[in-house]
Amino acid sequence: MYKESATFYHAGCPVCVEAEQQLATALDPTRYAVEIVHLGEQPQRLAQAREAGVSSVPALVVGGLPFHINFGASLADLGG
Amino acid sequence: MYKESATFYHAGCPVCVEAEQQLATALDPTRYAVEIVHLGEQPQRLAQAREAGVSSVPALVVGGLPFHINFGASLADLGG
Repeated sequence: MYKESATFYHAGCPVCVEAEQQLATALDPTRYAVEIVHLGEQPQRLAQAREAGVSSVPALVVGGLPFHINFGASLADLGG
Repeated sequence: MYKESATFYHAGCPVCVEAEQQLATALDPTRYAVEIVHLGEQPQRLAQAREAGVSSVPALVVGGLPFHINFGASLADLGG
């Protein structure tokens, strides 16, 4: 079955970890292929995150739309 | 199988509808029983939302933790 991709961007902050453990893992695994991207460790993914409309982390991009979840850090503070 | 309850609070705003269609419906239905609460139509649920730590909508409460998704309206503007 085709799975839609979903990308969870975070930076390891406590707010991010909470969101990852509760939300990113709560998505239906039969419908979504969830990729977890740590922007602190993978700064080369910052451009992709910005293009998806992400302005702060943690954020989940699903269906091409960025959803900012609470607030951990702005992309600008991550070198974005 | 036991399902954990998850509550999606919204107020019918465009940001809320987008989050509901993309995120609230993306949760794994085998693990989560998702309730959708429109605080504009059910103001009697405002106190419960506040107690869960919700300060703006749309928000998803899962595992007892409030996750504010983007920003549609503050609870104060909804009579909270």
